[in-house]
Amino acid sequence: MSQVYDRVALIGLGLIASSMFWAIKRAGLAGEVTGYSRSAKTRDTARQIGLCDRVCDSAIEAVKDADLVVLCVPVGAMEAVAQEISGALNPGATVTDVGSVKRHVIQSVAPYIPEGVHFVPAHPLAGTEHSGPESGFAELYDNRWCLLVPAEGSDRGAVKKLRSLWEGMGANVEEMDADHHDLVLSVTSHAPHLIAYTMVGVADDLSRVTDSEVIKYSAAGFRDFTRIAASDPTMWRDVFLTNKDATLEILGRFTEELFALQRAIRTGDGEQLFDYFTRTRAIRRGIIEAGQDTDAPDFGRGKASQ
Amino acid sequence: MSQVYDRVALIGLGLIASSMFWAIKRAGLAGEVTGYSRSAKTRDTARQIGLCDRVCDSAIEAVKDADLVVLCVPVGAMEAVAQEISGALNPGATVTDVGSVKRHVIQSVAPYIPEGVHFVPAHPLAGTEHSGPESGFAELYDNRWCLLVPAEGSDRGAVKKLRSLWEGMGANVEEMDADHHDLVLSVTSHAPHLIAYTMVGVADDLSRVTDSEVIKYSAAGFRDFTRIAASDPTMWRDVFLTNKDATLEILGRFTEELFALQRAIRTGDGEQLFDYFTRTRAIRRGIIEAGQDTDAPDFGRGKASQ
Repeated sequence: MSQVYDRVALIGLGLIASSMFWAIKRAGLAGEVTGYSRSAKTRDTARQIGLCDRVCDSAIEAVKDADLVVLCVPVGAMEAVAQEISGALNPGATVTDVGSVKRHVIQSVAPYIPEGVHFVPAHPLAGTEHSGPESGFAELYDNRWCLLVPAEGSDRGAVKKLRSLWEGMGANVEEMDADHHDLVLSVTSHAPHLIAYTMVGVADDLSRVTDSEVIKYSAAGFRDFTRIAASDPTMWRDVFLTNKDATLEILGRFTEELFALQRAIRTGDGEQLFDYFTRTRAIRRGIIEAGQDTDAPDFGRGKASQ
Repeated sequence: MSQVYDRVALIGLGLIASSMFWAIKRAGLAGEVTGYSRSAKTRDTARQIGLCDRVCDSAIEAVKDADLVVLCVPVGAMEAVAQEISGALNPGATVTDVGSVKRHVIQSVAPYIPEGVHFVPAHPLAGTEHSGPESGFAELYDNRWCLLVPAEGSDRGAVKKLRSLWEGMGANVEEMDADHHDLVLSVTSHAPHLIAYTMVGVADDLSRVTDSEVIKYSAAGFRDFTRIAASDPTMWRDVFLTNKDATLEILGRFTEELFALQRAIRTGDGEQLFDYFTRTRAIRRGIIEAGQDTDAPDFGRGKASQ
């Protein structure tokens, strides 16, 4: 893989940015990668672990002479960062982001993109429940999707270069309209996260079942919920507040279906339950076939950590 | 590990029974293991893959001279099986089961346990989304919990032997009261499964988001739900129908909390969301510390299958 950009600036140094840095380095995709975090502690950590070729003490310094600027801050912080760096962006440079919500980010950031600078919003569908500069790893994007959400009339050359970067980091890239992105993600990510957070909260509240019981016996299904519900609170607060309509719509449909299944349980309608569970099983098969998960009987986990 | 039972009979040859067989063999815990499945096709498969030392064509033949009989059928089928084998049980033998619900199983099976035969209900908290005789593997129970739910006045010798068997198969064993078991499991397993089934069903129903989009972009949170929602439909139908009260109670609390979070999203109450998500993150830490999951950044999955 050859170099795609001369200088990439990562604004925000959490899981996504730090994984981008290691993936860029792995494939030699950029001449230099600069980085900036609002937190002095994060900048110190980044310097200690060699995260970024150069860690800067201001966003303006980090974006100077960059031909790609990547906004890796929570969705709710995008506008302030865009405003701050606006005057320091080079003509011909591209600004992108990694936010989980696209319509809101476009509305927040686009007004600050100067004439002659390209804006190509993006969203890599990858993550873990960990956060912070030390949580990144080069393989995070391997065989995962990155969705590009360019506005109509975007510079195709700028979109193509950003696609090359993400493909170079191991991702599969597709383009999608912002509103459709926000709906699809509300189904595959935002609503499931809220549901997992809720279920874990219920368990924590239940006085007749101790926390230690919940923790000890989590392997029976609940464990996957806790992993989802351990994701970064700031990021997720912002996602729900900025993708409000789609998330509330999906949650409304979810509640409706849940009530129907609860009624089936209450009335003892085994046939309805069986049919429903048979249908959902087929979706899983599709995911295995699409290569988005492993079918290994132990989920690829080692013995000791099961 | 030395032999615990002379002859173990496995009635039902799905994921749990087949994993028990391989785990028993791995540690040499039984002289002979017989097996029976109602399905001729399953019995044929079992014979072909060497599952069980002897596959029998009737449950009565399988339990003959067994000193441990393990009922590995769906909860809703326990009563019929218990009735069928009742007359063939040896005095001094132990009958156990692996059902996910305990109060109902006890009510269904206990009446058919003859004088002089011990009944020690059990529930291994382990599984995958796969089912059938070929889905088992010896490591399934390693470092997982198995809950024993003996009635008051149970023969302590029989309980102790069953504990040795489960420990020999790699599990950690605890004893629990049947009603408490059913409540704890409704929180850690039954309600989460119904919620996952529901969310996957909603995704499947949504005409504006295609199935292929749901599948392609599942890695963003939804994937874990689909794994849970791919579990055996018969088993889960029976679980919900037989642990109705506890499951409905937990689902009621879940809905209540979900409505509160939906309201916070609607009104833009970021502080409430942030506080809630911070609290749930702590539970995850407890699970990692309790050794019930891996903290590896890629969840222990290989690159290709992420």
